[in-house]
Amino acid sequence: MSSTFGDKIKISIFGESHGGGIGVVIDGLPAGEKIDLDAVLVQMARRAPGKDKTATPRRESDLPKILSGILGDALTGAPLCAVIENTNTRSSDYGNLLSKPRPAHSDYTAFVKYKGANDIRGGGHFSGRITAPIVFAGAICRQLLEKRGVKIAAHIASIGSVSDVRFCPAEIDDALMNRLSLSSFALIDECAESRMRGEVEAARLELDSIGGSVECAVTGMPAGIGEPMFDGVEGAIAKAVFGVPAVKGIEFGAGFELSKMRGSNANDPFRMKDGRVVTETNNCGGILGGISNGMPIIFRAAIKPTPSISQKQRTVDLQTGENAELEIRGRHDPCIVPRAVPVIEAAAAIALINLF
Amino acid sequence: MSSTFGDKIKISIFGESHGGGIGVVIDGLPAGEKIDLDAVLVQMARRAPGKDKTATPRRESDLPKILSGILGDALTGAPLCAVIENTNTRSSDYGNLLSKPRPAHSDYTAFVKYKGANDIRGGGHFSGRITAPIVFAGAICRQLLEKRGVKIAAHIASIGSVSDVRFCPAEIDDALMNRLSLSSFALIDECAESRMRGEVEAARLELDSIGGSVECAVTGMPAGIGEPMFDGVEGAIAKAVFGVPAVKGIEFGAGFELSKMRGSNANDPFRMKDGRVVTETNNCGGILGGISNGMPIIFRAAIKPTPSISQKQRTVDLQTGENAELEIRGRHDPCIVPRAVPVIEAAAAIALINLF
Amino acid sequence: MSSTFGDKIKISIFGESHGGGIGVVIDGLPAGEKIDLDAVLVQMARRAPGKDKTATPRRESDLPKILSGILGDALTGAPLCAVIENTNTRSSDYGNLLSKPRPAHSDYTAFVKYKGANDIRGGGHFSGRITAPIVFAGAICRQLLEKRGVKIAAHIASIGSVSDVRFCPAEIDDALMNRLSLSSFALIDECAESRMRGEVEAARLELDSIGGSVECAVTGMPAGIGEPMFDGVEGAIAKAVFGVPAVKGIEFGAGFELSKMRGSNANDPFRMKDGRVVTETNNCGGILGGISNGMPIIFRAAIKPTPSISQKQRTVDLQTGENAELEIRGRHDPCIVPRAVPVIEAAAAIALINLF
Amino acid sequence: MSSTFGDKIKISIFGESHGGGIGVVIDGLPAGEKIDLDAVLVQMARRAPGKDKTATPRRESDLPKILSGILGDALTGAPLCAVIENTNTRSSDYGNLLSKPRPAHSDYTAFVKYKGANDIRGGGHFSGRITAPIVFAGAICRQLLEKRGVKIAAHIASIGSVSDVRFCPAEIDDALMNRLSLSSFALIDECAESRMRGEVEAARLELDSIGGSVECAVTGMPAGIGEPMFDGVEGAIAKAVFGVPAVKGIEFGAGFELSKMRGSNANDPFRMKDGRVVTETNNCGGILGGISNGMPIIFRAAIKPTPSISQKQRTVDLQTGENAELEIRGRHDPCIVPRAVPVIEAAAAIALINLF
Repeated sequence: MSSTFGDKIKISIFGESHGGGIGVVIDGLPAGEKIDLDAVLVQMARRAPGKDKTATPRRESDLPKILSGILGDALTGAPLCAVIENTNTRSSDYGNLLSKPRPAHSDYTAFVKYKGANDIRGGGHFSGRITAPIVFAGAICRQLLEKRGVKIAAHIASIGSVSDVRFCPAEIDDALMNRLSLSSFALIDECAESRMRGEVEAARLELDSIGGSVECAVTGMPAGIGEPMFDGVEGAIAKAVFGVPAVKGIEFGAGFELSKMRGSNANDPFRMKDGRVVTETNNCGGILGGISNGMPIIFRAAIKPTPSISQKQRTVDLQTGENAELEIRGRHDPCIVPRAVPVIEAAAAIALINLF
Repeated sequence: MSSTFGDKIKISIFGESHGGGIGVVIDGLPAGEKIDLDAVLVQMARRAPGKDKTATPRRESDLPKILSGILGDALTGAPLCAVIENTNTRSSDYGNLLSKPRPAHSDYTAFVKYKGANDIRGGGHFSGRITAPIVFAGAICRQLLEKRGVKIAAHIASIGSVSDVRFCPAEIDDALMNRLSLSSFALIDECAESRMRGEVEAARLELDSIGGSVECAVTGMPAGIGEPMFDGVEGAIAKAVFGVPAVKGIEFGAGFELSKMRGSNANDPFRMKDGRVVTETNNCGGILGGISNGMPIIFRAAIKPTPSISQKQRTVDLQTGENAELEIRGRHDPCIVPRAVPVIEAAAAIALINLF
Repeated sequence: MSSTFGDKIKISIFGESHGGGIGVVIDGLPAGEKIDLDAVLVQMARRAPGKDKTATPRRESDLPKILSGILGDALTGAPLCAVIENTNTRSSDYGNLLSKPRPAHSDYTAFVKYKGANDIRGGGHFSGRITAPIVFAGAICRQLLEKRGVKIAAHIASIGSVSDVRFCPAEIDDALMNRLSLSSFALIDECAESRMRGEVEAARLELDSIGGSVECAVTGMPAGIGEPMFDGVEGAIAKAVFGVPAVKGIEFGAGFELSKMRGSNANDPFRMKDGRVVTETNNCGGILGGISNGMPIIFRAAIKPTPSISQKQRTVDLQTGENAELEIRGRHDPCIVPRAVPVIEAAAAIALINLF
Repeated sequence: MSSTFGDKIKISIFGESHGGGIGVVIDGLPAGEKIDLDAVLVQMARRAPGKDKTATPRRESDLPKILSGILGDALTGAPLCAVIENTNTRSSDYGNLLSKPRPAHSDYTAFVKYKGANDIRGGGHFSGRITAPIVFAGAICRQLLEKRGVKIAAHIASIGSVSDVRFCPAEIDDALMNRLSLSSFALIDECAESRMRGEVEAARLELDSIGGSVECAVTGMPAGIGEPMFDGVEGAIAKAVFGVPAVKGIEFGAGFELSKMRGSNANDPFRMKDGRVVTETNNCGGILGGISNGMPIIFRAAIKPTPSISQKQRTVDLQTGENAELEIRGRHDPCIVPRAVPVIEAAAAIALINLF
């Protein structure tokens, strides 16, 4: 198993949904840098469920307890450990015997990989709850990036058939970045919110769920960051972002649109602007040869619909080896895309800080 | 710089287009396993340019010389080093002074990163030629995978506006896999070839280039391979595939289509078949929670159009700090997508062997 | 900072002496294997101070709280996190301003490295207390090794001028291994205890401390484990053992004695015994070319005297930049060698499990 | 197998004694830094055998051919690959069937690990010849260190019973460092040479070999380099130095002597000198808590006698499973200690550059 990320700033995430607690150890943080813990909590609140009808009803206590690595308001340079305790989770009402794996969940693959020994309660280590320490770690990393002038913000690019407008690829203003990075339903064009909520509500009423996509921008990135080949910016961000549950695709700049384009349209012309080299367009998403070119880094991630739905589904019974049906009781979050926004930002932050 | 990949079987790629040679060191190969070097050469021939009008006219000698790690026809367990010598490349006719970076190339970002010290002749370490050792390493890795019953094959999913049919997601027959993995213009529906070549020829006549996409399937993958979170199958493949120049997007299974779907359609139902757990559909692309579920792994990669085109382009002059125009003489490969197919397969092989 | 170890089973240690808690995350443990937590506590008790006059008077609550990774008595395969809370440690009676670094301590080097931002209370992350999670992690790893037939035990090879007898290099019986691995003052020849305690008491009465050495044996190690060159058994064990504070030397087999020997005496002759290849002598300490040869692995580690002594010492004042004197009040552990024994064993276990 | 080292500047060594060639790939070198290749060759010449009677009679062509990574006299930032071709080595006069493993050699352990598939000719990947690329890589790394003011030099601390004087621990002058780092029989007190050569000659005449030890100093090391716990300076150097064949022990500063000392004698008092913090003594070898303190780093490595001797030795026959005798024909190097000096320096350079 590898719930670790990074060579320079190493993130090691632990925890299972119904265990004693979840959390993260971050090794390699620079001593002496000030950390704004309130800003960290703001990020965690963006991810936390339970704020409205679009969310899972379970109340989580997401307040992280910092065991080490911060003294007063500054990093000590020692590994930072933050723990979020689980409450009311030692449920006795169901055992650890997996019978019917939920379609599109990790239930079955974890069962095979861990030979049935994994903690299946609430999804165990595969629970969406495990994204809380990702956001925590990302919130620390983004503060370090901000001191280097790098900002990260994402928005809900689409839910079902409803799309937000896209980032202007070549220039993105700070006010937008700031607004998005604090929003819990992040949109460039906020008019889209009601239609998006409509999509979610429609799915909910049919005991169904709905997918979407997230678009993320990184501004202030200096040119020359990243390594060629296997440690390029795209690969580093992709590895982190695919660590976020439910992500099934990622594209940079014009992405899959590039596959239909001619070079004469796709190639971003270089221009001088205020003594700096810029590009007129940004089809490459701020990355050439795996290395940042100083333009905004832009990527989009595809989020599959939440697998947990209350409709009856076809599955198998692993104990009997027969086909079976499954009906999951209780309320489920019909759309995780709004809450995925801060997680994607956090994954990008974790990836990028390791490139400096 | 990090032209290395893998924890178990470590790939370290070296070389510059116009240096003494390019190659790869592969550390961690299992002693005693037989290697079919002819099959390796077949893969390298698929990538080699110069076979027809769609390719760059430069003749490459791609015959790898194996310095270590193989004795007779078997791996010795020691690091395998293969070198491909560069010939006729110590060109005296241009220096190492980068003046006008080619749009959409790594010229500018490498200039910034390496402070102008990088070998710019032919793109240096960023040359497409560096994919030859990727294919070599991948050809070794895929032979190890084949002994575990795992096959990898890709095809040209699209060039410009012309698409091939897609892999049948849930079941892919061996004959198709074998045919594709030997083809130099790999298509499921071979009728598409003439229309695709037409797209390429049209671009070439306009001194332009054209992008495309590659779809790759991995069959015979046992369930339970991959790690949760940051070392999942998606992340591992993505990191390797983004190491291939010109890749700007990757999606698994239904990919970005999933963002528009409902859970009730997207969730792949589990079924028993011949005593084995399978899924009816394969929208997840054979991966759940980062772990293989035993179904074919399917992904698509977006390939941007070749940046090198002979049309006049807008750029800057790094020596004078002024806007400039650039006209690249000589013939260029108007479409690298056919040759990218074996490179993508190789990248997948390198990623997957490190998960076992 | 890197308080992490291992590629396969990754250990990430966190905590500062006076912070909220210390602990460890262990990633990559095999799902389903049973863990005997009582046996873990036995190892932690061997390391814990406060058992007699030779120890530091501070009472530690070393009971680890397991947050994740174990369900019932078995590993779930998810990262295991264990936390040991610090109690009564938010001392207000001294600030975080380092004035006079203790000679031979990390005070000065940590001050330079962390620019004065490190938590200096009780040594912070450099506290001997941080060896508790090493022992915890090692206790888990040694249980995994025992299932492979591998046993680890160490003894106090010397304290000051008093030496224990050495392990018989070529054959070590199980009873001895078992006895040593449970002992809190581990000696092969237990008659040495009173003389060793005499050395310690003499140092204590003079407000001084005394060094020593630890000899460790690993039995049941199959031949063929370890990698050549930089990941050999010696290098792996050395890296882990130098992670234990106060270790300043390590030697394998006959070690430094080999530098005075002739090949004809040093070369361990191979012999057949019960159908197995063994060596008559074991000057190589069970390792040839970095790879285990099936004989016991034997190494010795040099432990410097505890730096904290109550005698007046010469140091500098970092605030004034002048020479100064330092007198540390309170009782100090005059000899950590007995307690270092289980820590050295744990370090060896962590190193070895990563070679399998 | 892992013949790789380093996270920042990654060294990947390949080759077998009788294969097509041996060499190294160095990934992560800083673009633009000038390299003095003549100085590299000087280091390689120090290691090369065949200079006098104390050496193996085989003539090696050790001239490295640089395939990539250097353009003119400067690093390009791309991976540097250097190859040393093997000549006259495709010997047909013995096969690849290991019958009688040489005592104290890796013959047996490599046979077990690689299941008999390893190239046994000349020791294969375990040949002493493989230290040539270590010296090459070290020579590059030490030039980078020198630009940071860091010098590395070692000397023959002892051969058999004859010892050189030791480095003055607290202050070592540049002239000595320069002289030693160019010498092929490096001694502080050059009067010891004749007696040392006498030891070697005596061993040679008895068809035997003799061990020794090497002491290495690193001067100009700034304070604050290294990480606590598992990536401390001691652990990093130890991992690299144990990668050198025949090393069986390492100690830092006063090393094993510290195990007999009192804290009051062992603790190095801090003093101010010319506005800088220094220590009066240097028992800690320049390292406290795993981090450099600005004093010279000093360590000693124990080198076992060359296993290859011409005396008749007891071994086993792996084909018949019986005890056997072995007589190795030909001349052998009776003492590798002089030639180990530049290899130890190179290993230290490789370890240290990765800590910056």
